[in-house]
Amino acid sequence: MKPIIWEKGCLKLLDQTKLPLEEKIIECRSYQAVADAIRDMIVRGAPAIGATAAFGIVIGAKEIGVIEDKKRWLEELKKIGFELKQTRPTAVNLAWAVERMLKKAEDNIQSGIPQLQDILENEALEIAREDVESNYAIGRFGDELVPEGANILTHCNAGALATVGYGTALGVIRAAHSNGKKVHVFVDETRPFLQGARLTAWELDKEGIPFTLITDNMAGYIMSKGMVDLIVVGADRIAANGDTANKIGTYSLAVLAKEHNIPMYIAAPLSTIDMSLTSGKEIPIEERETDEVLFIKGKRIAPEGTRVFNPAFDVTPNELITAIITDKGIVKSPYKENLRVLFERE
Amino acid sequence: MKPIIWEKGCLKLLDQTKLPLEEKIIECRSYQAVADAIRDMIVRGAPAIGATAAFGIVIGAKEIGVIEDKKRWLEELKKIGFELKQTRPTAVNLAWAVERMLKKAEDNIQSGIPQLQDILENEALEIAREDVESNYAIGRFGDELVPEGANILTHCNAGALATVGYGTALGVIRAAHSNGKKVHVFVDETRPFLQGARLTAWELDKEGIPFTLITDNMAGYIMSKGMVDLIVVGADRIAANGDTANKIGTYSLAVLAKEHNIPMYIAAPLSTIDMSLTSGKEIPIEERETDEVLFIKGKRIAPEGTRVFNPAFDVTPNELITAIITDKGIVKSPYKENLRVLFERE
Repeated sequence: MKPIIWEKGCLKLLDQTKLPLEEKIIECRSYQAVADAIRDMIVRGAPAIGATAAFGIVIGAKEIGVIEDKKRWLEELKKIGFELKQTRPTAVNLAWAVERMLKKAEDNIQSGIPQLQDILENEALEIAREDVESNYAIGRFGDELVPEGANILTHCNAGALATVGYGTALGVIRAAHSNGKKVHVFVDETRPFLQGARLTAWELDKEGIPFTLITDNMAGYIMSKGMVDLIVVGADRIAANGDTANKIGTYSLAVLAKEHNIPMYIAAPLSTIDMSLTSGKEIPIEERETDEVLFIKGKRIAPEGTRVFNPAFDVTPNELITAIITDKGIVKSPYKENLRVLFERE
Repeated sequence: MKPIIWEKGCLKLLDQTKLPLEEKIIECRSYQAVADAIRDMIVRGAPAIGATAAFGIVIGAKEIGVIEDKKRWLEELKKIGFELKQTRPTAVNLAWAVERMLKKAEDNIQSGIPQLQDILENEALEIAREDVESNYAIGRFGDELVPEGANILTHCNAGALATVGYGTALGVIRAAHSNGKKVHVFVDETRPFLQGARLTAWELDKEGIPFTLITDNMAGYIMSKGMVDLIVVGADRIAANGDTANKIGTYSLAVLAKEHNIPMYIAAPLSTIDMSLTSGKEIPIEERETDEVLFIKGKRIAPEGTRVFNPAFDVTPNELITAIITDKGIVKSPYKENLRVLFERE
């Protein structure tokens, strides 16, 4: 299952707003179309939107065409990068991928434009390749934390659809499953966008991993009944102290996990960790349109004129996190020191 | 706003599955129609289904007709009572109202059948009248706990629609509002049945009480941001030790309230308190159909074949409850002693 396919200058995205009822491919031939796809959540998930934006830069570099003045060319590319970064503020992988692409362009600015375009295309493909590889590594490390026969609760979708392939949190689950552990997954439906019901259920179903769908407000109840052995979710941005922004509702799960002594794991590649932020307080939390809550599949659920608050993410403080499963190993408290060591080793 | 109207042998129910988009009245002319309406959640909310079942008994008593052998007549009525009680297992008001009606019949068994039918009709009307009165009392007591300008979080619908009128948790909010306190309500949408988005939002909108709709998984986030001053919800059954069964998700809110030092109030009449149960462990938790989760307004949200767990209620242990606001006063810990005193006073 590939959410992002690069084909001769065209970025093909599996439309995640249509899943699971329809498997529709959207073709992006302009960086603007890529920006729209990210904003409208045709593609979502921190690593996935990072790779998507990288290909957006590749398309944008083609769209700029040939400008003799390289400084001006680079400025145009930076404008495109800025526009892409503006689409969604919380997931740091988006900014990370755009910055990496722009740096690649800057480092190779002496090359001819056609060459530069090739260099950028290769860099985007490399970002995509690395992402899949990092997910396999997360799976290998995370598998150690999953007991035989575990009941695992997950929230939102941190699967193949949220990445370039395999997944972060679902990567851990996939690894445990393929190693023969008889795991069972509780899937939070994840309102308002229903990533759990629509996307995680779809992925687990395709993979043949047993799962049970619940509404978000049932998580506490199943924990109180001893039905959950561990929780694993993805991340949109992790601060240097381990505070983690992830899909709205993650924080509630973490508080409930503490109450029930259930391990709370975050699975994310290094590109999700923002060492420039000392704590989660500095992570910008995106607020999305009210219609995302007021309408489900085009059907209104609340009275006309209803006021809505729709934060897309929340921040889980590091003290509620049992471990962060990265592509470079498992990190535990004290996160500030241990995350620094991880980055210094790189 | 009257969810239950009794009119010349016909029970008219405001169809709560259709709100807020449509205000449709369902007419029940047989006890079986009443049972179906309770089961299908045309009418819901613990006190409301209690009163509804009482009128179901009235209709049933007419349907039995005249049987010379009074013992057999009473047995027929008990069968009807049993059927009505079977419709929903968790809310005790249903059993409470049926038992009260059957006892009334038994106590007056020497009367003629037409007389008995009148006695039962009056008893059902009395149950309905008492319910509204008890909600006003809950409102008066609860108002004392609401600070000026409070931001109040509520879950599900414990309003006029969940009772015969005025509401329990919403009764407290209505009282505070009508006493001029500038309150604002955060409304949990309350999946899967969306009682918050559909019913509580509709009631608050009609009443002109300012509110903001959130998805259930946002409650923890708004608490962490200091946006909630108190939580007030209704109850479906309260055990003698104060453990409270209420709409699924209430337990999670209570754990989150403890984490953030936010008062967690339960508002319910004495008819919701089941002194025969020593703890919440004995409260039966209804599991409802999977389609309630899998479809929203007729639209499928998860892949075909998805397994669902759909408990309709959870139990909040007494130690997470700041106070229970009853129609006879506010009860605090130790609940076992203080609830007993309340009932002895009656």
